Amino acid sequence: MSYIQQSFSVQFEYKVYFTEKIFDPANPCFASFLESRAEKGIRKKLLFIVDEGVTEAHATLQEQIAAYCADLENFELVQDVIVVPGGEAAKNDLQLFYWLVNAIDQHAIDRHSYVVAIGGGSVLDLAGYVAAVSHRGVKHIRIPTTVLSQNDSGVGVKNGINYHGKKNFLGTFAPPAAVFNDAHFLTTLDERDWRSGMIEAVKVALIKDAGFFDWMEAHAQQLTQAEPQSLQYLIRRCAELHMAHIGGKDPFESGSSRPLDFGHWSAHKLEQLTDFELRHGEAVSIGIALDSVYSWIKGMLDEASVMRIINLLKQLRLPLYHPLLEIEDENSAIMAGLEEFREHLGGRLTISLLRAIGKGEEVHEMDAAALAQAVNMLRDKW
Amino acid sequence: MSYIQQSFSVQFEYKVYFTEKIFDPANPCFASFLESRAEKGIRKKLLFIVDEGVTEAHATLQEQIAAYCADLENFELVQDVIVVPGGEAAKNDLQLFYWLVNAIDQHAIDRHSYVVAIGGGSVLDLAGYVAAVSHRGVKHIRIPTTVLSQNDSGVGVKNGINYHGKKNFLGTFAPPAAVFNDAHFLTTLDERDWRSGMIEAVKVALIKDAGFFDWMEAHAQQLTQAEPQSLQYLIRRCAELHMAHIGGKDPFESGSSRPLDFGHWSAHKLEQLTDFELRHGEAVSIGIALDSVYSWIKGMLDEASVMRIINLLKQLRLPLYHPLLEIEDENSAIMAGLEEFREHLGGRLTISLLRAIGKGEEVHEMDAAALAQAVNMLRDKW
Ligand SMILES: NC(=O)c1ccc[n+]([C@@H]2O[C@H](COP(=O)([O-])OP(=O)(O)OC[C@H]3O[C@@H](n4cnc5c(N)ncnc54)[C@H](O)[C@@H]3O)[C@@H](O)[C@H]2O)c1
Ligand SMILES: NC(=O)c1ccc[n+]([C@@H]2O[C@H](COP(=O)([O-])OP(=O)(O)OC[C@H]3O[C@@H](n4cnc5c(N)ncnc54)[C@H](O)[C@@H]3O)[C@@H](O)[C@H]2O)c1
Ligand SMILES: [Zn+2]
Ligand SMILES: [Zn+2]
Repeated sequence: MSYIQQSFSVQFEYKVYFTEKIFDPANPCFASFLESRAEKGIRKKLLFIVDEGVTEAHATLQEQIAAYCADLENFELVQDVIVVPGGEAAKNDLQLFYWLVNAIDQHAIDRHSYVVAIGGGSVLDLAGYVAAVSHRGVKHIRIPTTVLSQNDSGVGVKNGINYHGKKNFLGTFAPPAAVFNDAHFLTTLDERDWRSGMIEAVKVALIKDAGFFDWMEAHAQQLTQAEPQSLQYLIRRCAELHMAHIGGKDPFESGSSRPLDFGHWSAHKLEQLTDFELRHGEAVSIGIALDSVYSWIKGMLDEASVMRIINLLKQLRLPLYHPLLEIEDENSAIMAGLEEFREHLGGRLTISLLRAIGKGEEVHEMDAAALAQAVNMLRDKW
Repeated sequence: MSYIQQSFSVQFEYKVYFTEKIFDPANPCFASFLESRAEKGIRKKLLFIVDEGVTEAHATLQEQIAAYCADLENFELVQDVIVVPGGEAAKNDLQLFYWLVNAIDQHAIDRHSYVVAIGGGSVLDLAGYVAAVSHRGVKHIRIPTTVLSQNDSGVGVKNGINYHGKKNFLGTFAPPAAVFNDAHFLTTLDERDWRSGMIEAVKVALIKDAGFFDWMEAHAQQLTQAEPQSLQYLIRRCAELHMAHIGGKDPFESGSSRPLDFGHWSAHKLEQLTDFELRHGEAVSIGIALDSVYSWIKGMLDEASVMRIINLLKQLRLPLYHPLLEIEDENSAIMAGLEEFREHLGGRLTISLLRAIGKGEEVHEMDAAALAQAVNMLRDKW
């Protein structure tokens, strides 16, 4: 038995820009990025895919895009900006996936063209997946328009759609060409959306950065009113921490360790059980409350810390409990979420819990009785 | 305008093993690879996806697999080996894609489990794509069973399926966990299949390795009878050259340069025009003849070299011409293949031609009149 060894590495780079009113003719941010990617003699195409929630809230957006792109020298806007329904629905409908693939085909978007997706995490996940598998990878630019997508989902390397009701069953790892976080989009978000988006900052502070958690406590008042400066700081720090983690040991998650999924095993199941009536961030808030209280019950986390966490979530008016969380025994619906989580990550069950505020710790089993106790406390005690 | 910079690299490694009768209980090759990937306390699953052409030619294969895998300590065979129709049909039917995705879901194949695909390049391309997008990437092992898949398609990093009749419109770059080239499978191939598979060796020799071309001329007699030792040398050298190229500058093909696609622009179109009645390798043989003669007409290649190429193709009994190749003007069917090729690669048209045997050279335009002249010569002269 002999063999040939293959071995190579692939370098990935992109920037996440912070800007405001990206399609204002006076704002050079987007144009100068594009011109830095221009190639002599080729007019590259730009295919825009936009979240319907965004076009509804920003009625002149399509004209702004058309006017802005008309001034670009080496790029050509595909005339029909494609508007797709926003929210989780975008990830639940395979027809949408093929509709977008067909658009790439029909408009002859090649591997030197760009798909530009504007929207919440759901639309970005869908459009990113479409771009990743068309021609084995068309370049894509993300313009996230929600708190969650600006501080977490939109700045990372993953995409995906749901399949047979399973979250992100189909997807890839595909870094974007660039990300533009435009603060102005956030002004039109529903309260539930901007509020729940903050949970990813709480999450990443809890597992990685105690100082950031302190800052959130100190600014809870401003944050709960979406005071722009505080919200911007939260988004930026949260994005930084996520990106530093991704750029670290295991960008494409070949191992089973997934600290950024703290609080997510039950959250993913709750989203599914509520038929996505719960926002992702709301479900994660409940999941974080659950795993924090569980950490405390199991003696990993001290009481003062768990109370700080519960209090911050309450101050940010994020939920702690949902009736579908109820755990009667090992076979409760939510417990199935543990097995689905294990399966999605592969290998041994690996759950991040808390050792302290700012310090995650992995465990490989969860105790159903202690979980049930935690659920009871979340329902009755706070 | 401020930004956060993301930057990381991802390392990829795999081996291509050369073996014979891989599921013979006395052959430790496959088992020892798997055991090197075992993790304490986890029984990883193996989901086999097998080309129907292979199960038909190797009637006891499924029992052999079952018996072989029964002896593995840390791995568990999913009982129903999945048999899919072989040949290009496997890549033309979206239903098959979803059937396999459903199998991954139903059998709870996670990211630490393995999809093991056995078959020709078509089945490997389909199964590789399914594995790449399920759970954002389940590991996959390839066991190529044709000359073409052992010397080219199966040892690389690409997968894909056709969509709306366009070759590989949907796919990804996803290196395998390992590849096992089993010489025994080749003994049951149709003559058209083993013969046409040799073209990729002619191709890579022409653009990269004059010595390998000399060797093929010297062994044309043995090769045209599929004499096992010569065929093995051809496969191994061809695989080596392909892997060295992939492991070089641009493994995931971010640029427009694609020397390994020498002769392929017209071949892809011919496959489509003949409704895949032509084998990939047959179409590539015609494409190589065309681009070699064209190189000569354009004064890049000398006459002696082009005659050596034509003669080798004839000795290997590979085709030089197909009626659908006819070029009347810029709008001929085959000329559309040029634009489709440009689009699939993106950016500027980039075609590899020949400066000498063993030395490719890129051009950025093709001259329809000279191409038509080359077609006429291929039809009438040889
Ligand atoms: N890829 C990743 O790494 C990753 C990470 C975390 C979460 N996610 C995914 O992100 C999704 C959630 O994304 P989300 O929280 O951004 O919500 P969302 O995309 O589901 O959008 C929520 C709603 O807000 C609307 N909307 C978006 N921007 C708006 C704006 N500026 N003004 C008014 N309305 C607007 C949308 O139309 C939608 O109705 C989930 O599917 C989750 O799984 C992905
Ligand atoms: N992914 C890549 O990088 C890459 C590169 C080159 C080609 N390809 C693709 O590979 C495909 C062609 O693959 P191929 O030439 O291996 O042919 P194939 O997979 O289409 O198979 C041809 C026929 O041989 C049968 N067969 C396979 N193994 C057999 C065996 N051992 N005994 C008897 N019959 C057997 C199959 O059932 C089928 O009927 C094309 O779709 C081409 O685009 C992919
Ligand atoms: Zn999340
Ligand atoms: Zn080929």
